[in-house]
Amino acid sequence: MSAVVAARGLERLSLNQATITRASLRTAVELTARAGIPAIGVWREGIAEEGLEASARLVRDAGVRVSSVCRGGFFTAADPAERRAAHEQNLRAIEEAAALGAPALVLVAGGIPAGTKDLAGARERVREAIAALVEPAASAGVRLAIEPLHPMYAADRAVVSTLGQALGIAEAFPAPTVGVVVDAFHVWWDPDLAEQVARAGAGGRIASYQVCDWVTPIAPDALLSRGLPGDGWVDVPALTRLVSAAGYDGDVEVEVFRQEVWDADPAAVVELVAARHRELVAPHLA
Amino acid sequence: MSAVVAARGLERLSLNQATITRASLRTAVELTARAGIPAIGVWREGIAEEGLEASARLVRDAGVRVSSVCRGGFFTAADPAERRAAHEQNLRAIEEAAALGAPALVLVAGGIPAGTKDLAGARERVREAIAALVEPAASAGVRLAIEPLHPMYAADRAVVSTLGQALGIAEAFPAPTVGVVVDAFHVWWDPDLAEQVARAGAGGRIASYQVCDWVTPIAPDALLSRGLPGDGWVDVPALTRLVSAAGYDGDVEVEVFRQEVWDADPAAVVELVAARHRELVAPHLA
Repeated sequence: MSAVVAARGLERLSLNQATITRASLRTAVELTARAGIPAIGVWREGIAEEGLEASARLVRDAGVRVSSVCRGGFFTAADPAERRAAHEQNLRAIEEAAALGAPALVLVAGGIPAGTKDLAGARERVREAIAALVEPAASAGVRLAIEPLHPMYAADRAVVSTLGQALGIAEAFPAPTVGVVVDAFHVWWDPDLAEQVARAGAGGRIASYQVCDWVTPIAPDALLSRGLPGDGWVDVPALTRLVSAAGYDGDVEVEVFRQEVWDADPAAVVELVAARHRELVAPHLA
Repeated sequence: MSAVVAARGLERLSLNQATITRASLRTAVELTARAGIPAIGVWREGIAEEGLEASARLVRDAGVRVSSVCRGGFFTAADPAERRAAHEQNLRAIEEAAALGAPALVLVAGGIPAGTKDLAGARERVREAIAALVEPAASAGVRLAIEPLHPMYAADRAVVSTLGQALGIAEAFPAPTVGVVVDAFHVWWDPDLAEQVARAGAGGRIASYQVCDWVTPIAPDALLSRGLPGDGWVDVPALTRLVSAAGYDGDVEVEVFRQEVWDADPAAVVELVAARHRELVAPHLA
């Protein structure tokens, strides 16, 4: 089937599936296409539910492009057997991204192994684990996209905490194979943000730009603190101009984890995402 | 009266009053002295309750040194009248620190003004407001100690988010008058930590070292997430060696905001603080 004709102002919008997490991949793809949103960010859980071949057929038949697969990573286990298992999972994630035609596989580093306080060791293992994925990713034509997560997740989710740190890892490898994710929620506070986005752009390292918002107070489950663009403290237009000026010309994903958003009607959420993109993002893209 | 004779291993410990927040300044000073802890970090709320002259007499009579006064700051209001009021409050805080013989006044920057998304403007106002306090602080013999707070507080509490950023502000002014606070909870995650602590030390900028821990999950009130040293993810001995190797030879404050700690018997908390200091901090000081 031919590609979805993007609705006016939505030409670069991608709906990350997690924003309507209750919907199956099938439903998420349908809602995306129906709203005139040309792209989707797909989660591995959704692929597993549908099956890989069926998932690939689904997005192809719908004419929706896949902007990213979320997610690989979780590199930081101290136990060698756990690290090998993570490597195998990441090889599988690369295959899935390739099968879906996704340009990027998002990588979340993983936290400090429980029972230790070895932040430095965990960070070193991230570097080693990514090195081991570069050749398979290059062969598959998939780009590894290192996502720095907000420092409040450094202990238990991701020891890669800033854009500068992510770039420091990525720059040891070829830019077409290893890039970084710029996610508004995770990086908006960074005093070095302008400098690091420019560095990422100059090196051709921006693999994905994800938009959401920092909402206070922090949610009881801190992982669910992300709000819809415009609902929090982030100057989304300014960040979008920064990323755009750095040369990023790919899809802009809206990825929100928030209980109220998840509890709402998925079709209504998709409309709201489209409206916010038109208002806060599209006018600021080059 | 003569100085408290520090118990063995507690020579550089300071109990920050907030760790036993239910206790009055009088009780906090008594518990500190009784435990053989030679220093205390005092909050302005405690001073206000007791009165400034009485507070100064209290610590002097107890022979307890005051390691810091907490806190000044809150510089980021957009409204000029609010900014003038904050400046007046900070002048008053400088006076209080001088009266208590505290070497440092801790400064918390303040958040983004409600209803705006102007992080950059708020950061600029911090710089201007500190510039206006340098002369009064120098005259009073009080050092302004800029405290970077964890990035999770950037929106609503402190737009100074990293040690590097705090140093960038401090370094525009003479080191004896403007320094920075190294607080374990706020900075432990920073990929640039070793470099920035070394920079702070080389410039003689470490005005205070505060020890506590990062405990997961983040508390329902994020401000109360700080745990006792040893109860979380921070490698306190390693951080202490880093700060010590950078040349810091002042008091080490234990400052914990946590409901369970506040609900416990203050005398028992003081004993626990002393024990953790002996175990995790004292052996790692030069």
